[in-house]
Amino acid sequence: MTKKTTIYDIAKKLNITAATVSRALNNNPKISKSTKEIVLRTAAEMNYEQNKLAQALKNGKSFNVGVIISRIDSNFFASIIRGIEEELFNHGYHVIICQTNNNENMEAENINTLLNAQVDGILMSISNIDIDKNDAFKRILNKKIPLLFFDRKKSIPGISSITIDDFSAGYKATQHLIDEGCKRISHLTVDRNFEIFRDRFLGYQKALSDNNILFDESLVIETKSNIEAGKDAAKKLLKLKNPPDAIFSSSDFSALGAIQEIKAQGIRIPQDICVVGFSNEPFTKFMELSISSIDQSPIEMGKTTARVFIEQVKNKEKYIEQKVVLDPTLIVRKSSSRK
Amino acid sequence: MTKKTTIYDIAKKLNITAATVSRALNNNPKISKSTKEIVLRTAAEMNYEQNKLAQALKNGKSFNVGVIISRIDSNFFASIIRGIEEELFNHGYHVIICQTNNNENMEAENINTLLNAQVDGILMSISNIDIDKNDAFKRILNKKIPLLFFDRKKSIPGISSITIDDFSAGYKATQHLIDEGCKRISHLTVDRNFEIFRDRFLGYQKALSDNNILFDESLVIETKSNIEAGKDAAKKLLKLKNPPDAIFSSSDFSALGAIQEIKAQGIRIPQDICVVGFSNEPFTKFMELSISSIDQSPIEMGKTTARVFIEQVKNKEKYIEQKVVLDPTLIVRKSSSRK
Repeated sequence: MTKKTTIYDIAKKLNITAATVSRALNNNPKISKSTKEIVLRTAAEMNYEQNKLAQALKNGKSFNVGVIISRIDSNFFASIIRGIEEELFNHGYHVIICQTNNNENMEAENINTLLNAQVDGILMSISNIDIDKNDAFKRILNKKIPLLFFDRKKSIPGISSITIDDFSAGYKATQHLIDEGCKRISHLTVDRNFEIFRDRFLGYQKALSDNNILFDESLVIETKSNIEAGKDAAKKLLKLKNPPDAIFSSSDFSALGAIQEIKAQGIRIPQDICVVGFSNEPFTKFMELSISSIDQSPIEMGKTTARVFIEQVKNKEKYIEQKVVLDPTLIVRKSSSRK
Repeated sequence: MTKKTTIYDIAKKLNITAATVSRALNNNPKISKSTKEIVLRTAAEMNYEQNKLAQALKNGKSFNVGVIISRIDSNFFASIIRGIEEELFNHGYHVIICQTNNNENMEAENINTLLNAQVDGILMSISNIDIDKNDAFKRILNKKIPLLFFDRKKSIPGISSITIDDFSAGYKATQHLIDEGCKRISHLTVDRNFEIFRDRFLGYQKALSDNNILFDESLVIETKSNIEAGKDAAKKLLKLKNPPDAIFSSSDFSALGAIQEIKAQGIRIPQDICVVGFSNEPFTKFMELSISSIDQSPIEMGKTTARVFIEQVKNKEKYIEQKVVLDPTLIVRKSSSRK
């Protein structure tokens, strides 16, 4: 490796002080235009490369932003990141991504990794981390770099969040099934310790109640968000003495599993059972029996998250937290269209 | 923010020198076990946090590895990253991910971002970057941190790569279609400036030749890897005076588009036209008309990439480059099963 050019080398060559070189490179107004020009030209000729990390440590800016998500193999998160990148790119920021697989230890490790990499901010969809006890989490708050939540949030004073109205999403999906003539509507939920899944469930309950349909606990099944879990849930439901005529699933993947099981048992969709999923994963549209789903506008969510981050960077002192709630859209497809 | 505890604070409290504290914290053999214990205990009591970045700069280890891929919204890349993470996790490494969207500028920016974040190595699926001209790329080589290619490689002496045998994949897919009785086999290719797409095409040609089927240029269409492009390609093919009885696509997404177009025109799959895609994206299995595809063992590719990286880190001096080529698997599904 050849020896790196330093500001001292440039100073020596031009017979000026290193301080002048440094000021010229940093566009200090005290330095004349002609000096700046000759310093910049000489620096380029000598292949001078400013140590960006040293710069970052000095002026506290790396122009890297860390994004933490549960898993990248989901179209939802991939689209959010696309939105974040599109928006931040215009402001000169780059995005580095870490995934947690919903594991609390990984989440803490990711935070440490990003902080050690000197990111200027962390945008995260939080999973199980205990914000009161976790050292890594405290480190972000201590460092006073912007922290924003998207999709999955915790309520912390001063911390902005960009989410969708999951209650409204659950309500819309359930109301649609009622409008299609369904009367015994099952709900596949995921761990209701997460606000998002709890809110979808509550929206479902409220729509039932507003339509004078009695809530039946036996129709609510907690599953994981995957195909096998959806199949198992459908098996349980179809064994009931009085099986459901609709399923609203908090996950497209378990909705798909349920559909496969229902069809395997020779039951017709949507004539006998209507199904609505959640997230508008691309495959829901690809299927011959396309699957109704809730679109969460992930690109818009990503762009909004990035915009709020930029506002926060620009108004460091007088920044006021924002709680942005986006409105979800129900997309009706064959799996729930009886009419 | 409370003032951070330094080694000087610990030294003062214990009435020993800062150098002794530093050596004890770094497990220096010159320091007695009892001193180490009391220093570690006191450091913990005083909430001392070693500046990991400063450490990394000093000993050249951040235990972060950068992964660069074209786009995260592909099951293939997501699975590779899963494999990399599972393997590296056991060695104490964390993974940070950047995506390029196949844009050369983004690729260069990502390299700079990762180098500035002091990663210990870069694992990348390279896209269009000109390795001879690109400054960012030269910076990796100059820094002498491990660089490895997976999936998409360039041939550089000393640089290891982990790929699949794309020639064999193209051959297997084409031979399978011939075995199903197809005689006019079309190929949807993607930009053949990429080795992977060129090799798939060459495997296709070789299988035709080995079976005494004349190669017909008009049956080869260059498309992008998306549904619309696949539809357009199928439209062109179906307009031919002598249309194909099979399509081997280098992309599952264009295969899906082709299937949608073929069905829309009332042509039967697989009876009239057989279709084989590439990558074994999850939706190929989900479809009612499931799509045959080539599985590239992405998790295995990720794990192997991580293992080669670890070997390289361990044997810095006597490291010999490895060119690992994994064997792809053809998965036959409904879209090409006539028998």
